[in-house]
Amino acid sequence: MYDEIAREVVRRCRILATCSDEPGCTTRTFLSDSMHAVHAHISRWMRAAGMSVEIDAVGNIRGVYGGTSGNARRLLIGSHLDTVPCAGAFDGVLGVVMGIALVESLRDRRLPVAVEVVGFSEEEGVRFGIPFIGSRALVGSVDAPLLAAKDGSGMSVAQAIGKFGLDVSRVAEARVSPNAVGFLEFHIEQGPILDQLNQPLAVVERIVGRTYVDVTFIGAAGHAGTTPMHARRDGVTGAAEWIGRVEAYARESDALVATTGRIEAEPGAANVIAGRCRLSLDVRHGDDAARIGAVHQLRAWAHDIVTKRGLTLEWSPRFEHAAVAMDSRLVAGLKHAVERSGMKARLMSSGAGHDAMILAGHMPVAMLFMRTPGGLSHHPDEAVRESDVALALAVGANFLDALD
Amino acid sequence: MYDEIAREVVRRCRILATCSDEPGCTTRTFLSDSMHAVHAHISRWMRAAGMSVEIDAVGNIRGVYGGTSGNARRLLIGSHLDTVPCAGAFDGVLGVVMGIALVESLRDRRLPVAVEVVGFSEEEGVRFGIPFIGSRALVGSVDAPLLAAKDGSGMSVAQAIGKFGLDVSRVAEARVSPNAVGFLEFHIEQGPILDQLNQPLAVVERIVGRTYVDVTFIGAAGHAGTTPMHARRDGVTGAAEWIGRVEAYARESDALVATTGRIEAEPGAANVIAGRCRLSLDVRHGDDAARIGAVHQLRAWAHDIVTKRGLTLEWSPRFEHAAVAMDSRLVAGLKHAVERSGMKARLMSSGAGHDAMILAGHMPVAMLFMRTPGGLSHHPDEAVRESDVALALAVGANFLDALD
Repeated sequence: MYDEIAREVVRRCRILATCSDEPGCTTRTFLSDSMHAVHAHISRWMRAAGMSVEIDAVGNIRGVYGGTSGNARRLLIGSHLDTVPCAGAFDGVLGVVMGIALVESLRDRRLPVAVEVVGFSEEEGVRFGIPFIGSRALVGSVDAPLLAAKDGSGMSVAQAIGKFGLDVSRVAEARVSPNAVGFLEFHIEQGPILDQLNQPLAVVERIVGRTYVDVTFIGAAGHAGTTPMHARRDGVTGAAEWIGRVEAYARESDALVATTGRIEAEPGAANVIAGRCRLSLDVRHGDDAARIGAVHQLRAWAHDIVTKRGLTLEWSPRFEHAAVAMDSRLVAGLKHAVERSGMKARLMSSGAGHDAMILAGHMPVAMLFMRTPGGLSHHPDEAVRESDVALALAVGANFLDALD
Repeated sequence: MYDEIAREVVRRCRILATCSDEPGCTTRTFLSDSMHAVHAHISRWMRAAGMSVEIDAVGNIRGVYGGTSGNARRLLIGSHLDTVPCAGAFDGVLGVVMGIALVESLRDRRLPVAVEVVGFSEEEGVRFGIPFIGSRALVGSVDAPLLAAKDGSGMSVAQAIGKFGLDVSRVAEARVSPNAVGFLEFHIEQGPILDQLNQPLAVVERIVGRTYVDVTFIGAAGHAGTTPMHARRDGVTGAAEWIGRVEAYARESDALVATTGRIEAEPGAANVIAGRCRLSLDVRHGDDAARIGAVHQLRAWAHDIVTKRGLTLEWSPRFEHAAVAMDSRLVAGLKHAVERSGMKARLMSSGAGHDAMILAGHMPVAMLFMRTPGGLSHHPDEAVRESDVALALAVGANFLDALD
């Protein structure tokens, strides 16, 4: 029933993927010129679906489809429109386009709630190194330090807002009404779990907590030829021993992921024993106690290793956020909608952060994941199956019907 | 007996350390402006010792002290005058200053050989990424590709020669006469071995062979939050496992050193599983068969690891050189001179490359190492004990006397 709409949704995502800051690649950062083109497309589709359209002061595009009464509470549906460099066509964008498609498929039928579809201007944090600027504006957490943050060219967030043609003095007006019914985000999983399970959809029950630490193993630089093995205090080999422990621990721990994605040696020459080795540790788990316990254990092992090797350790926490539970009533509503669509409702955690996480403290939130073929995301080959989009649209329509 | 001369030698090295391309640090690269100042000092000291002085076309300073006959064969004594960035005062320079001091201490006494003290213009390879340019000129291996090599500013070796005031067309004249008696190099050990043994000196019997390989573990980049541990193909954790094997193998192998001094992940972000991890492998051993066998074993383990982990391996040899034996007669002569100075002669391998290695194919070569306190070299705190310099000068004088 939603096959044709799903095909149109995918086609629209592909159109938006052509709006890019660089040729040959989909790269669209916060308030870049290519975002104007995206707004033009989205705005046209929103109006065709019967929505009134505004761009708020941080560049979120917001289309409102009124409810049966003029003062109906709002249900928000949305996701983000910015991308990582050389991105795929679906991360973020898909959730916005699906929101519009759901409103369009109401064919002027009114619900007891108004539906506001939001295309967030910023989620990935590429331009200013600060993620979620779009959803932060809806909850009133775009503050002066954030507006003063500068991009690589030295332009501040406030200046970028002005350059895009928006009025920074009106940022506070972007806040969403405190009596919203909730926020619903359709998103690709961006991981391989549903694909490996051969499942099209899952209802997200929580977004995992995350700890990010910069870890440095400090020894002493030395000549690679003249320093015998027993006389070395090598930062790289100390770090390598620890990485092995981190990986083994995470493999043995249910639902824990731990990643050492960045590593560099100083001075970093082939003929010099590394005096320092700096690497990142990213630990995530749906259960905060499990995550905190894991980080504690990994830190203790790092201490054991540096002690044994005559090294020292720098342990610099960069940030940490707790797991965010989705709203139990909305989750139940989505599960019910999945079942009404003839499927078994599968629950899962999101390993990635999403705009829903930011809004969660201010309104009930829920997310529906669609399978990501091969788990491939943040990549030009990122894909979604039209049949999965059709199923997700059916779930969304059932969810809206249940509000009726 | 050589205490006062040793004190003057150390003083002269400290003076030369003030000749630098950058303030507050001793950095002196091939044919840089500060090399003119070094030449002025060296030239003055050479002349005061009774030597005639020339700068050859690659910027080596060469002082000749004639023998008893006009056509006496030459004994070369020398080392290099360039430094690494922010270097110490003794690496290289000490050997040149000691050569001059030995000639000076002859006090116009003539030997059956002429003594040529050479201050090589380039050994470290900092400016053009090509080491040993000075000693290469003495053996005629400064060829057109080397002269065309460019530094970071785009200036070629040939242009740098001209800018320094030298005539590149005369490079061939820098070649040393094929009937030289030999080459003797005094050098700090640049490692901790003599210091740990509480020994002042050692006669070098060989310079170890070296294999340098760039090794890349290639997996697949992925999201650090959404990719379960079992679904990862992580370049960093694969590389870390291998580094552990490399270190353990080298620790268990007599006289082998293996170093992974450079490591980097791609894309290199905390929240992305590394799709690639590239690192350097530097393996050295005095016995070529032992070194080649070690590299073979380490490569086999890398293959085992990538196979087990679903990764692939790039194994890119960058360069390799065989161990270089010092001349047995000159080594025997140095041992004898050590014993005549009242010490037991200790033999050792050099883990670092030296100019003697380049000259070895063309004349008998030998080296005498002086203890390096703490093994610290290529560092502003690099030191040498005056008493060790005095002992080494005594050995040098005995060596010259034996030629008499």
